[in-house]
Amino acid sequence: MINALDRLVTLLAKLPGVGKKSAGRMAYHILETSPDYARELARELAGLHQAIKHCSVCGAFTETDPCPICMDSGRDTSIICVVERAQDVRVIDESREFHGRFHVLGGLIAPLEGIGPDDLSIGRLLSRVRKEGIREVILAMNPTLEGDTTALYLQKLLKDTGADVTRLASGLPVGGDLEYTDRLTLSRSFRGRIKL
Amino acid sequence: MINALDRLVTLLAKLPGVGKKSAGRMAYHILETSPDYARELARELAGLHQAIKHCSVCGAFTETDPCPICMDSGRDTSIICVVERAQDVRVIDESREFHGRFHVLGGLIAPLEGIGPDDLSIGRLLSRVRKEGIREVILAMNPTLEGDTTALYLQKLLKDTGADVTRLASGLPVGGDLEYTDRLTLSRSFRGRIKL
Repeated sequence: MINALDRLVTLLAKLPGVGKKSAGRMAYHILETSPDYARELARELAGLHQAIKHCSVCGAFTETDPCPICMDSGRDTSIICVVERAQDVRVIDESREFHGRFHVLGGLIAPLEGIGPDDLSIGRLLSRVRKEGIREVILAMNPTLEGDTTALYLQKLLKDTGADVTRLASGLPVGGDLEYTDRLTLSRSFRGRIKL
Repeated sequence: MINALDRLVTLLAKLPGVGKKSAGRMAYHILETSPDYARELARELAGLHQAIKHCSVCGAFTETDPCPICMDSGRDTSIICVVERAQDVRVIDESREFHGRFHVLGGLIAPLEGIGPDDLSIGRLLSRVRKEGIREVILAMNPTLEGDTTALYLQKLLKDTGADVTRLASGLPVGGDLEYTDRLTLSRSFRGRIKL
């Protein structure tokens, strides 16, 4: 009916978790809000890819290169946490559980999708582990088929470097319920059980 | 952590139904998608308020003035459907249940929020009903306190015009369940019961 609105709705509906209906609600909300909001949002979007790059050391998103985490001398430089995607760095960093540095693979090994080891930042990881005197490599991929495959592959490759290779524990989520836990998760929580 | 990203997340979180977490997911999605998408979205947003105006006749959103609905000679010009907001026109028009014209009030009477009849497009509605020879005015506000108040007010005002004044039926939603229907809705469905 209204072309400019329809084009906006179509674009907004491409965002994750946004269907045609909520995209419509968003578009009308933007239209009814002051034009300043739309202009500000437009400006941020237009400049986004120019403002944010991948860190040339770890691959995380950053406005400065190397990124603030790689430049932070207060961090433990002997531990590297390997993650699948650049946004995983933010999730882990905000949990304040980890104080070392990161390495972004840029994906997971997925033969069915044609993604092999050469498509990931694995060579760089190996050279970092060797050159930076890394003591421990924490593999923090998701516990999925591709995550497991990639972790196994990296574990073998990293054996010669002398660094310890660990993987995030997989099991019952805190606050979860045995009754609603799937069989695979339950199996992992048994295999990974801890002596008290 | 990353300013450009944080600014974008803050802006996206202002959209209806979008929390801080889904705004983050959207921002990263945009960042990982081709810059073309961000640029296109930016362009649409920047031009939105300029491209879309309110129709000078009915108040609906439109790119041309008067809007295509007001200009459509195939429509029944003797019936006006009165709605609260400009986006309600789209909802009703897409249902294909109504083939007359619209009138957007631009809000509802809400004394607690300081919105009185003078803040709404009520004078224009009256003059349209008189000048356009309207036979029926359908009040299509939501069945809320403000919607009811506004409907009652309009009903009294419109009495002298000679036009029939009707209101959309309120009752059980199709596919709904008596058990899960609130008392007020049930009460309305009783009062509005239809002889078969």
